[in-house]
Amino acid sequence: MNHTTHPAMNAKTGTVTLVSAGPGDLDLLTLKAAKALARAQIVLLDDLVNPDIATLAPQARIIRVGKRGGCRSTPQAFIERLMVRYARKGHDVVRVKGGDALLFGRAGEELAALHRAGVPFEIINGVSSAFAAAAGLGVSLTHRDHCQGVIFVTAHLRDHSEPDWQALAATRMTLAIYMGMSRIEGLCATLAQTLSATTPAAVVQWAGSAQERRVMGTLGTIAELAQAAGLGSPAIILVGDAIGEAISQAGSLSAFDAHATTLPALRRA
Amino acid sequence: MNHTTHPAMNAKTGTVTLVSAGPGDLDLLTLKAAKALARAQIVLLDDLVNPDIATLAPQARIIRVGKRGGCRSTPQAFIERLMVRYARKGHDVVRVKGGDALLFGRAGEELAALHRAGVPFEIINGVSSAFAAAAGLGVSLTHRDHCQGVIFVTAHLRDHSEPDWQALAATRMTLAIYMGMSRIEGLCATLAQTLSATTPAAVVQWAGSAQERRVMGTLGTIAELAQAAGLGSPAIILVGDAIGEAISQAGSLSAFDAHATTLPALRRA
Repeated sequence: MNHTTHPAMNAKTGTVTLVSAGPGDLDLLTLKAAKALARAQIVLLDDLVNPDIATLAPQARIIRVGKRGGCRSTPQAFIERLMVRYARKGHDVVRVKGGDALLFGRAGEELAALHRAGVPFEIINGVSSAFAAAAGLGVSLTHRDHCQGVIFVTAHLRDHSEPDWQALAATRMTLAIYMGMSRIEGLCATLAQTLSATTPAAVVQWAGSAQERRVMGTLGTIAELAQAAGLGSPAIILVGDAIGEAISQAGSLSAFDAHATTLPALRRA
Repeated sequence: MNHTTHPAMNAKTGTVTLVSAGPGDLDLLTLKAAKALARAQIVLLDDLVNPDIATLAPQARIIRVGKRGGCRSTPQAFIERLMVRYARKGHDVVRVKGGDALLFGRAGEELAALHRAGVPFEIINGVSSAFAAAAGLGVSLTHRDHCQGVIFVTAHLRDHSEPDWQALAATRMTLAIYMGMSRIEGLCATLAQTLSATTPAAVVQWAGSAQERRVMGTLGTIAELAQAAGLGSPAIILVGDAIGEAISQAGSLSAFDAHATTLPALRRA
């Protein structure tokens, strides 16, 4: 979708395309994202994006704008200034974010900056990692027998508070928890005050990439299982009866080694 | 992700690939989905999928398996039997579902049927329409100033009951409501018992396709605005302060005709 903000834009002003890189596997980029990268002149890359994505942008200058290392507000403002500066120079700028850019990616702030600067922009969607996590487990995020929907929530809040886990649990929907590994034990314990400790749960690290690793269990066991398996960030924590479909299917097929090989985590669960 | 269920599968048994078609624009398919279609021998297509997708599967026999017309359980079982039958004949079967197959698509039932039949399957993710709706509005689904996440909920439940709208509203998260147009007035009224009637809201019909149409307003006005604009299913209803970022940005730029042209719905809001 094109968002042109100024009718009489300087003919030399470029555009910014916000591209969703998906969960890691370059084949999970959309065709539209691949086309935007192929014509890009400047590419601003986030830390968690697969660096091989640069191969899809052979004409572009690649600028890494990761925010690891503790420094926070300055880099975000710097990224916004970079986008605007290069667009004003007439370049086609592609800003790449992992997953879908419109979920937990601070895209709202970057779009607002482009609006303020009068730089035209376009947004290209992608696959968010919770979807890839479910695909890896071979399970749907929703199941009409179990729930009415799914909640995508980040455990990492700006003010260091926590989401109201009990209110979320009370909805009985599937929970897809982003950035929750540093507090998985506590959040599972809190969820278990409302949900049964036997509620199915899974952790998928690096979902949708070649490094993907999975553990399955229950709300009562998943924190320990994930720790025992050495899983850490970045990972998605999935909780809910719909997720249990993978476990029950695995159980019914446990005699088959091939299945255990493609879903090794199920052995541990 | 490959899910092989039988180690000693008959050499002639084919596979089923569950392909997410995304919201409509064929460019929003993933590269992986396009590759699966290119090699497909049998394609089973849902009703709401852009029929032009058949052009990406030139070798395949295309079978439309839509469920419109009131008939419910028989077609679902029939689709499952078709998938299994063609795979057992040794064909590479691609089952295409709109949006992401793992959200509200009854994929759980189809995966269970493949498990039971011992047919190996693979799942390829895609862009769900609420993401496309947000992209069309030029807004993020989450915003760190406003909310901790987003709830994807279907208003169309198996037993004709309704989700607990007040419990969902109480989470203060962005709501992305699928299949809610037939009851938009009632659900907005119920949400307004917990949320302010001035909470930003939007309706996007055919999000992420050439037919996309948008209206923006508030929880108190959106049902009437959508009706006045003639918007109906299939559409996404978005509710929450994060969605209001598009409205406030449009307000600050309302002098620019070009913006009104690319976001015509904003004029009505």
